[in-house]
Amino acid sequence: MEIKDMLEGQTIIRPDGRAVDELRPVKITRSFTDVPEGSVLIECGNTRVMCTATFTSGVPRWRKDSGLGWVTAEYSMLPRATAERTDRESVRGKVGGRTHEISRLIGRCLRGVVDMKALGENQIQLDCDVLQADGGTRTASITGAYVALVDALHWAKSQRKIRSVERVLKDSVSAVSVGVINGTPMLDLPYIEDSQAMTDMNVAMTGSGDFIEIQGTAEHRPFSHAELNELLDLATKGNRELQRAQADALAELAEH
Amino acid sequence: MEIKDMLEGQTIIRPDGRAVDELRPVKITRSFTDVPEGSVLIECGNTRVMCTATFTSGVPRWRKDSGLGWVTAEYSMLPRATAERTDRESVRGKVGGRTHEISRLIGRCLRGVVDMKALGENQIQLDCDVLQADGGTRTASITGAYVALVDALHWAKSQRKIRSVERVLKDSVSAVSVGVINGTPMLDLPYIEDSQAMTDMNVAMTGSGDFIEIQGTAEHRPFSHAELNELLDLATKGNRELQRAQADALAELAEH
Amino acid sequence: MEIKDMLEGQTIIRPDGRAVDELRPVKITRSFTDVPEGSVLIECGNTRVMCTATFTSGVPRWRKDSGLGWVTAEYSMLPRATAERTDRESVRGKVGGRTHEISRLIGRCLRGVVDMKALGENQIQLDCDVLQADGGTRTASITGAYVALVDALHWAKSQRKIRSVERVLKDSVSAVSVGVINGTPMLDLPYIEDSQAMTDMNVAMTGSGDFIEIQGTAEHRPFSHAELNELLDLATKGNRELQRAQADALAELAEH
Amino acid sequence: MEIKDMLEGQTIIRPDGRAVDELRPVKITRSFTDVPEGSVLIECGNTRVMCTATFTSGVPRWRKDSGLGWVTAEYSMLPRATAERTDRESVRGKVGGRTHEISRLIGRCLRGVVDMKALGENQIQLDCDVLQADGGTRTASITGAYVALVDALHWAKSQRKIRSVERVLKDSVSAVSVGVINGTPMLDLPYIEDSQAMTDMNVAMTGSGDFIEIQGTAEHRPFSHAELNELLDLATKGNRELQRAQADALAELAEH
Amino acid sequence: MEIKDMLEGQTIIRPDGRAVDELRPVKITRSFTDVPEGSVLIECGNTRVMCTATFTSGVPRWRKDSGLGWVTAEYSMLPRATAERTDRESVRGKVGGRTHEISRLIGRCLRGVVDMKALGENQIQLDCDVLQADGGTRTASITGAYVALVDALHWAKSQRKIRSVERVLKDSVSAVSVGVINGTPMLDLPYIEDSQAMTDMNVAMTGSGDFIEIQGTAEHRPFSHAELNELLDLATKGNRELQRAQADALAELAEH
Amino acid sequence: MEIKDMLEGQTIIRPDGRAVDELRPVKITRSFTDVPEGSVLIECGNTRVMCTATFTSGVPRWRKDSGLGWVTAEYSMLPRATAERTDRESVRGKVGGRTHEISRLIGRCLRGVVDMKALGENQIQLDCDVLQADGGTRTASITGAYVALVDALHWAKSQRKIRSVERVLKDSVSAVSVGVINGTPMLDLPYIEDSQAMTDMNVAMTGSGDFIEIQGTAEHRPFSHAELNELLDLATKGNRELQRAQADALAELAEH
Repeated sequence: MEIKDMLEGQTIIRPDGRAVDELRPVKITRSFTDVPEGSVLIECGNTRVMCTATFTSGVPRWRKDSGLGWVTAEYSMLPRATAERTDRESVRGKVGGRTHEISRLIGRCLRGVVDMKALGENQIQLDCDVLQADGGTRTASITGAYVALVDALHWAKSQRKIRSVERVLKDSVSAVSVGVINGTPMLDLPYIEDSQAMTDMNVAMTGSGDFIEIQGTAEHRPFSHAELNELLDLATKGNRELQRAQADALAELAEH
Repeated sequence: MEIKDMLEGQTIIRPDGRAVDELRPVKITRSFTDVPEGSVLIECGNTRVMCTATFTSGVPRWRKDSGLGWVTAEYSMLPRATAERTDRESVRGKVGGRTHEISRLIGRCLRGVVDMKALGENQIQLDCDVLQADGGTRTASITGAYVALVDALHWAKSQRKIRSVERVLKDSVSAVSVGVINGTPMLDLPYIEDSQAMTDMNVAMTGSGDFIEIQGTAEHRPFSHAELNELLDLATKGNRELQRAQADALAELAEH
Repeated sequence: MEIKDMLEGQTIIRPDGRAVDELRPVKITRSFTDVPEGSVLIECGNTRVMCTATFTSGVPRWRKDSGLGWVTAEYSMLPRATAERTDRESVRGKVGGRTHEISRLIGRCLRGVVDMKALGENQIQLDCDVLQADGGTRTASITGAYVALVDALHWAKSQRKIRSVERVLKDSVSAVSVGVINGTPMLDLPYIEDSQAMTDMNVAMTGSGDFIEIQGTAEHRPFSHAELNELLDLATKGNRELQRAQADALAELAEH
Repeated sequence: MEIKDMLEGQTIIRPDGRAVDELRPVKITRSFTDVPEGSVLIECGNTRVMCTATFTSGVPRWRKDSGLGWVTAEYSMLPRATAERTDRESVRGKVGGRTHEISRLIGRCLRGVVDMKALGENQIQLDCDVLQADGGTRTASITGAYVALVDALHWAKSQRKIRSVERVLKDSVSAVSVGVINGTPMLDLPYIEDSQAMTDMNVAMTGSGDFIEIQGTAEHRPFSHAELNELLDLATKGNRELQRAQADALAELAEH
Repeated sequence: MEIKDMLEGQTIIRPDGRAVDELRPVKITRSFTDVPEGSVLIECGNTRVMCTATFTSGVPRWRKDSGLGWVTAEYSMLPRATAERTDRESVRGKVGGRTHEISRLIGRCLRGVVDMKALGENQIQLDCDVLQADGGTRTASITGAYVALVDALHWAKSQRKIRSVERVLKDSVSAVSVGVINGTPMLDLPYIEDSQAMTDMNVAMTGSGDFIEIQGTAEHRPFSHAELNELLDLATKGNRELQRAQADALAELAEH
Repeated sequence: MEIKDMLEGQTIIRPDGRAVDELRPVKITRSFTDVPEGSVLIECGNTRVMCTATFTSGVPRWRKDSGLGWVTAEYSMLPRATAERTDRESVRGKVGGRTHEISRLIGRCLRGVVDMKALGENQIQLDCDVLQADGGTRTASITGAYVALVDALHWAKSQRKIRSVERVLKDSVSAVSVGVINGTPMLDLPYIEDSQAMTDMNVAMTGSGDFIEIQGTAEHRPFSHAELNELLDLATKGNRELQRAQADALAELAEH
């Protein structure tokens, strides 16, 4: 079933005037800061995440002498990324459950497109720091971190730390959120919609259109297989567009 | 498409001799310990999880005067649940990312079947402690925690802390893992299979057959929409059987 | 003086109908879980502790190149082992004083019967997790951990990691609590008695009848040397019976 | 003695071509993010710090019923603000000494220009997060935080949470670093100079030219009173210019 | 059996020339510092512990409205109290097991002589900080803390916070270590002996000669009931002398 | 301008009767405890700090193979050093900001007089534990730590761990506080003055009269360059006297 058909005749009004299958404006700025091997600011509507990629020779101890590389991620929110200030996790002395969960998600998604053998015993650390949060911070982090990762690999190639960027990258990856609001499936939820969604799903997909990660949560109202399919169609459309934005950003001459 | 058809002609051999769409033996023991309002030992093959439900009057501060209840969960592994001993998180001084992620998953799934208004300002804490781990500990925790939750609600009814168990429980919930191993989708993976799975998915479903939570991860090989559908069919079959086991266990006279 | 004489003519009524010098029923289940080198469930009345022994080649850094082995223990309570749920120490981010104190006690008692030279540079970690607490959890832990230790040593022998179980084990060890309640010394206190005891003592003894550890506390009423002697006689009787239960359990064919 | 005279005839070459008494280019962007009551990006050369001001009604418990307000600050570096990635303090589980020291410095400087009585029982939290570090991050934080503070006060005035911005603000404040490199006192040190400085001083001054904080450190070579005076003259010049930049930024119509 | 007889004919040489049943020189300095309600420096040989008693109106939350007071203790070692510097527990971020164990022991011993009803809803916190450690730091802490406690009670009486010192104090308490070295029971072990002791026992006794706490440990060689009795006789002698030293110190006019 | 002139005709009355430019009585006791390589008790009025110096062969990992030594410091307050008991940082599980700030200050000051090359790959750890706090604890710590450092160097020389004390020590160092109270600059503030000071400054100086560290804070009222000069003159006078006290103490035959 086509999303378009499904919505025919409806006049859904989203707070920001978008169609139900429309992404928020995406803007990807490379070389946002100077020193990291990859440094990207991604803006999805009002959500802004700074994603840096740090390339280091060598891997963590448990991975040594495996001939394999490692990719890992850390996610964090600045205290005033949100309407109410949230206390710093450094001050509280521990990383919270939500932060842990998202950091692990980002790491898995990026590892999903990296050939660890081709990377060799090198490590890439992705840091995603949310400057402003308006929904979809974890999916924006994945989409932005991919671009930072590519830049870091180009840097590594130029430093002869890896042989080829193409062999390390098995595919591209992006992610987007979808959800059901008042019975209507919608693409790319800002905070105001996200907080009303009965069902909420984050979908990470490769450039070739396969799934790397699906996380659907229906704390407020379970969803059927049919609804799931609608949501996945929306997510597929959204990810295709995000991947175009990634490609456009990467097409510009790397300045690093 | 039928799972049966799909496998026709194949001779998949699983390490424990099961068919690809066959659950491990499930055993649910109620009143496993004496004092908790609900106390369940669930065994799924060699995986054994002790699930207790603690019913307390009152809710956390942020929920006060809302008229709504709260359900939360904590998951933990005993040090020698695994082949190699893992250090205690209490000794390390912090809860790890995996533990956080699973605790949150269990909490969301159980909240998904509870009517917080009918629960009133009461809290139920679910503790899932893994005595032995052989894959599927998070899904076994959800399945077992549901039974403990029901027992705790019956206790609360008997103590006149809630009016009706039926009104609080919107549905039942169970969860199971599925995954793709060497290209074959399979149900209910023990550790040996789980560690080889290219794609791994945990699916929590209600008694009425809807999804409460889908978490699919494909760090090692992305999966297509078609594969996803096969996995969800397997999960549906598995959850139906787990829900029968829950119902059978609950059918026995409550001894509490 | 004989305990029997001492009590002649008295009609002490304990809440569970036991005589003042009578142990609660003891049940020791070996191979309670499958993977640890030693895995024991010990039940003393309603107190239930799961004790596992982990045998590892090598010793902590500070012990390296000493030619000596090491034995250590960690004790912990599951959150609903008790009538009121206790917060997890992992969530609180630190190990409490009581837990520390008991872990250290168990470690000392078990080290007291191990010849570190015969053990060689190997380590045994004893984990005592209380599934249900009704008084005497630390003494039950010691008694159960000894059986798990023996099983782990037999496993180590079978793997040729040690030369002889007999040379490593200098003696057996068990422990029991005694206390004075309303002026009457009693053996093996459940929670209800323990909380009323004026004097409380934990006594660990070897199979040959010597003391390994005596911890007597009289926060509520000091005790005289005469009372101490009565308590030690009760403890001696109790430990003799516990050691018989250990021997019986170990007499069964090891299944590991 | 005039700085100009002092340098006559010398041909000091700074890595970035500046004169010894010349500030790096300063850029202050207000409303850098949307939600905070004050949100400023300050750039001093390559150093970039995001400074937000959070205005909340009410004060910490220890300050209650005093009739006085409170101003506090927290400083932090993003992991890749620096050439080498630094581990997150949230992950390490504690705030480091340097972070503590700088947070406290910023708080004191801003409190130095606020009339706590006029502020009333309200709190302003200043968060200074370094996006890119090239020396002088603590002084840039102070200079930027002042602008964010002013914006937050204007917001508070518009919300009738304070009566008058002017009464709360006793003065303006800015800060700059000075140091002695190879015997020559210099203004506003980037990282490369800072790391070679024998003496290093951070000077916070009010708009009326008085000192709020002087922190001079001479771990590598003590300095004389004469040198101190030269450094303070340089700092006075630098702060005068920074205060002009603050005033210029604040002169633009507040958009909040 | 008399200690004296036991040793007849022997020529035990202790490193410091003492007889086996001889205490090290004890010196108790009251008002060691000025501000605490009780402040004592106790020196037992080279072991020096500063013990302060803090009297506060009110009790911890869990004790409120019980009409009962509370006494608690904290023990700590300065980093260079020992031959090798030990890291600070504040820097390590957690209190170690040994510290926890000793703090709890001191608290129990002091509570053992305090009538909580007579104390009323007031709290006394005892801080025992070891300036120099040469064995017996925990027993010196108990002995010294008692004197600080008495001083704090006199202060509280003078402030009319309690009615009578005598009613609060049920008895006095002191503690001493004893141990078996090369088969010989000895009193008051300095570090050099303590580290060689096969059996080690700390004994806290009241002024009336009863036991408040017995902690005997025989990690290295179990001990018989006969040996236990010898050790308790030595401890009784030692405690009697320590209590005389306490009384002498307290006899001097309180200067506080 | 002379301090004397400035005060002419005034009759400032300080709570303890001192002149505005008068130090509190200083007493420096060496070999305060027996085991550390340097152990000093410094008393400045009622402020008493125990300073120990620990000399260890080898340096922290990040300093290895540099040929350079390292000097570091830790500051801490005993709980009842102050009028109100402060909770232990070990119990709270983290080092506070103030403690961090002061520890770092002491370390920098002492490093400022040590030639790291002459020290060789050895480390000196200075521990400053405040037994009683009456203002100026950080400056007393610096002054006392210097003496402990010298003793530790003499010990190191005697053990042939360094070649010459003179080459390692580039100069001496002491520190003192100054402040402005009710408009009058004063030397060496006790707590009662410190808490009223509008401006507060800690000044560490070398024996040759240069500055090593200046920390001036004017949270309550900014100060002018003229006031700064007056304060620095007072500090110079105070430090000269403190250095005489250090020299006198060191002149006595080292007993270590």
